[in-house]
Amino acid sequence: MTGEVGRRGPRPAGEDTRSAILAAAREEFATSGYAGASLRGIARRAGVDPRLVHHYFDGKAALFAEIIDLPLNPAAVVAGIVDGDPDELGARIVRTFLTVWDHDDNRPALLALIRTGVTGESNGVAQLREYLSSGVVGRIVRAHPHAATLSPKERTLRAGLIASQMMGLALARYVIEFPGVAGVPLESLVERIGPIIQGHLEN
Amino acid sequence: MTGEVGRRGPRPAGEDTRSAILAAAREEFATSGYAGASLRGIARRAGVDPRLVHHYFDGKAALFAEIIDLPLNPAAVVAGIVDGDPDELGARIVRTFLTVWDHDDNRPALLALIRTGVTGESNGVAQLREYLSSGVVGRIVRAHPHAATLSPKERTLRAGLIASQMMGLALARYVIEFPGVAGVPLESLVERIGPIIQGHLEN
Repeated sequence: MTGEVGRRGPRPAGEDTRSAILAAAREEFATSGYAGASLRGIARRAGVDPRLVHHYFDGKAALFAEIIDLPLNPAAVVAGIVDGDPDELGARIVRTFLTVWDHDDNRPALLALIRTGVTGESNGVAQLREYLSSGVVGRIVRAHPHAATLSPKERTLRAGLIASQMMGLALARYVIEFPGVAGVPLESLVERIGPIIQGHLEN
Repeated sequence: MTGEVGRRGPRPAGEDTRSAILAAAREEFATSGYAGASLRGIARRAGVDPRLVHHYFDGKAALFAEIIDLPLNPAAVVAGIVDGDPDELGARIVRTFLTVWDHDDNRPALLALIRTGVTGESNGVAQLREYLSSGVVGRIVRAHPHAATLSPKERTLRAGLIASQMMGLALARYVIEFPGVAGVPLESLVERIGPIIQGHLEN
């Protein structure tokens, strides 16, 4: 026992390292933004070997998700989306996104994320934008064989169009609770919005 | 001169009536919600003839817009959208919406509106939802000959899908400033999103 106030028992050394990495990551994201931050830079700030960062966290997106208290690992969610028939990628994006949002355990943190995006100070919004565009949507777009052949500028447009639709869907279904979108079964929205997302990927 | 502090000169009687109607409308919307509020009820609350409400305000949506400090008359904007070739209705919705948002005079109030929708207390969100669904989007959807023949439930779904897309576009272009959506000319988005909105109206 260390005798520190508030400690219920001895903390394993691993937890201290993990906390040190998280604290360093918070600093690194705030200073360099999401795009500029690197796992190597975070390790340097924390004074640990970069391999330790990889040991505790499943990449930069997962580390960021933990900092913003996201109750899920976006790398695992993205992997589940990109794995499968490219012709069904649009439907998988909508189904996975809505399944994650529909889950009571996830919704509060996701709502907090949207609120940060809408009302947060500009530094937070910039980090969020970079995280969503390069860490999540950009990776999904590159997973489609046609979208992967587009110019980077065109690919960024497609990612932005997909993000617009999905953010709007979350806003309408879970925040404003727009009649017609809040009340319908998840699969009705997959049926309606899936082909739209697919169109952004393959046309 | 009345001698009241802060008054620069005599206030015309019309301005007092107008203010009384606005104050009554605020109460009525807060008590009954947007859908439940009526111009007749607002007149009763203000102690004026209902014809006076019609004299000063261009309907319920315009009155609500003034209360939430919207710098434009939604009835006029909606009229400009619904007037014209139904086959181009989707493109007109996107073009008008983005033109209004792109204008520096409008954006602060519209951003405040989105923030209310995302973070406001539930009473404010309910009013906003009813205003948008029945006062704005619902009217546009009913203007399309095909959409006008759908069941009310199906029409509500279409209105919700259109609102999702447009709110997401505003969020991505003006709030989060998603690369690819924030940086492109307005007409590129009309070209991309217009057919999607048209699809919600006619399929």
